[in-house]
Amino acid sequence: MSKKTIYIAGLGLIGGSLALGIKRDHPDYEILGYNRSDYSRNIALERGIVDRATGDFKEFAPLADVIILAVPIKQTMAYLKELADLDLKDNVIITDAGSTKREIVEAAERYLTGKNVQFVGSHPMAGSHKSGAIAADVTLFENAYYIFTPTSLTKETTIPELKDILSGLKSRYVEIDAAEHDRVTSQISHFPHLLASGLMEQAADYAQAHEMTNHFAAGGFRDMTRIAESEPGMWASILMTNGPAVLDRIEDFKKRLDHVADLIKAEDESAIWEFFDNGRKKRKEMEIHKKGGVESAFDIFVDVPDREDVILSIMELLRGTSLVNIRINEENREDIHGILQITFKNEKDRKHARTVIEANTDYHVVIA
Amino acid sequence: MSKKTIYIAGLGLIGGSLALGIKRDHPDYEILGYNRSDYSRNIALERGIVDRATGDFKEFAPLADVIILAVPIKQTMAYLKELADLDLKDNVIITDAGSTKREIVEAAERYLTGKNVQFVGSHPMAGSHKSGAIAADVTLFENAYYIFTPTSLTKETTIPELKDILSGLKSRYVEIDAAEHDRVTSQISHFPHLLASGLMEQAADYAQAHEMTNHFAAGGFRDMTRIAESEPGMWASILMTNGPAVLDRIEDFKKRLDHVADLIKAEDESAIWEFFDNGRKKRKEMEIHKKGGVESAFDIFVDVPDREDVILSIMELLRGTSLVNIRINEENREDIHGILQITFKNEKDRKHARTVIEANTDYHVVIA
Repeated sequence: MSKKTIYIAGLGLIGGSLALGIKRDHPDYEILGYNRSDYSRNIALERGIVDRATGDFKEFAPLADVIILAVPIKQTMAYLKELADLDLKDNVIITDAGSTKREIVEAAERYLTGKNVQFVGSHPMAGSHKSGAIAADVTLFENAYYIFTPTSLTKETTIPELKDILSGLKSRYVEIDAAEHDRVTSQISHFPHLLASGLMEQAADYAQAHEMTNHFAAGGFRDMTRIAESEPGMWASILMTNGPAVLDRIEDFKKRLDHVADLIKAEDESAIWEFFDNGRKKRKEMEIHKKGGVESAFDIFVDVPDREDVILSIMELLRGTSLVNIRINEENREDIHGILQITFKNEKDRKHARTVIEANTDYHVVIA
Repeated sequence: MSKKTIYIAGLGLIGGSLALGIKRDHPDYEILGYNRSDYSRNIALERGIVDRATGDFKEFAPLADVIILAVPIKQTMAYLKELADLDLKDNVIITDAGSTKREIVEAAERYLTGKNVQFVGSHPMAGSHKSGAIAADVTLFENAYYIFTPTSLTKETTIPELKDILSGLKSRYVEIDAAEHDRVTSQISHFPHLLASGLMEQAADYAQAHEMTNHFAAGGFRDMTRIAESEPGMWASILMTNGPAVLDRIEDFKKRLDHVADLIKAEDESAIWEFFDNGRKKRKEMEIHKKGGVESAFDIFVDVPDREDVILSIMELLRGTSLVNIRINEENREDIHGILQITFKNEKDRKHARTVIEANTDYHVVIA
């Protein structure tokens, strides 16, 4: 494919990682970047994330074959409006990276209809607690879902072209309607964040009158409130642009709380048991996508004696793999899983690990 | 202190770990155990968890200086009733290990008042996803909170004596009123479990009509629903014996959901931002106790090059420590933390690790 010029507005974790991913498979492409702060522009230039950087959004837009808006949602919509008045290349592909899609897609259709551009919504679904150009990582989107939300401005060739341009991300592509995207993410991401923050606030308030609240909070509470530490600006934008879907989840959840309250009042122990058992069953069934945020969970379990020389010898066998974690479990030997739980970044290394361990040792390896 | 006979009813994870902990500091004590299944009794005997085991609860009760009821809540209350009719040692200390306290304390006072016994409620606050005598672990309660809830049957010497008997657990002792214990745990444990199961059920139902729900669920959702995999029987007992406090948390939470819903309907972005920012601040402030459940989080971070020979050499240095996890982080080098995150079971090994690494290498070690 011929050399392209890619313009990325927003050189934070997302924009920077997109740039690195694109360059991985297309080292000949020219990557231009915009960022408001010159500190970030300098980091992006030093790290080779972009070839040229500007503090003026308009400057590089007319040079681009592809424009990626990797800025906050409101800014994305403002930039779509600005792009409508610029003299862009014919058939330029414009896309974004926003966590919600419907409002962005509606803005794109509102401002860009009738212009000689292509637009598709994008949502590369990965992130981390890190931020900024310094944190940009070519592997950030590996095996993550990269979601396209087609619009009336999406041609038949738009998505195939983008898939090729973005091939270095090594993501899994999905196409979905923008409103459906927002509904689904309200359930598995937006509403859960609201729950976490609400629980944290509730506990903090309770601690005012019940001091030991601060002290007894432990593992389960930690898990339930971890995402309350997310960046407030991003989550405020999300709730502002996905209001109806989130309101729907709130109403639905309140009914569920009422139902459990009724069971408690009725002292219906078997129904309460069913409630918890159902939750447990459903969680085991649900494929919880392995790449979302910080952790990739491609695990193997190796049934070895709890001896350090054994563990070291296994690590020697696994040199060169994308090993990210080794946990020494003291699991009940009656479980299927063995004592050593080794996590890899991807399926390929996981399978390789099993092959290599089973070829060189007598240890049994389970993939789970 | 003179040799004592300790009788533990229930030789699962909790009872078994209590036994091992007691024996650690009092190897001369005689530990008697009761368990319904002979499979578990055999494991307990083989592992040296108990010296003698019975399948008849009444058999060893009259021999005991201390009786610990480490069975499910309802069973605990039934046993308290049985104990009232047995010919026990004068001044025998009776305690339990239940996750809720008020109903157990009320049962003890109801059945044992006027008898020549001492009773105090206990709640050793640790656990894991493991179960059974096979999983019993002398370190389970190390640095965990061991909560006493005094009753009208608690003498001045009851708790001090128990603290001595239980010294091998290496727990942190706390005394609190039984009803207050139940209120606090409703907030930081019981209600969160309900939330997790409710969210899991909500998402599973939503997935019926919105298929991508199953696929887009990722890190945040995984965290929020992890505790939905808990054992349903235990959580049903908890909700059945802590109804009022949990109902209070449900009502309070619904009001918070309503408040956020109002902010969304009003499109009040700055108030929504405050909501999320408040959650984040409060979480950072709250001391989330390090020992609760599966993980001990005694971590060190070692700033090393991401080279396998380096990692292997560090592991060699740490032979003999209670190392449970090695994570190879690809953290932003500007963070304080380094690439290798090593977790130990206790503070002693963590400090030793730092000493030994700093003595033998040039690598910088951070404790965090």
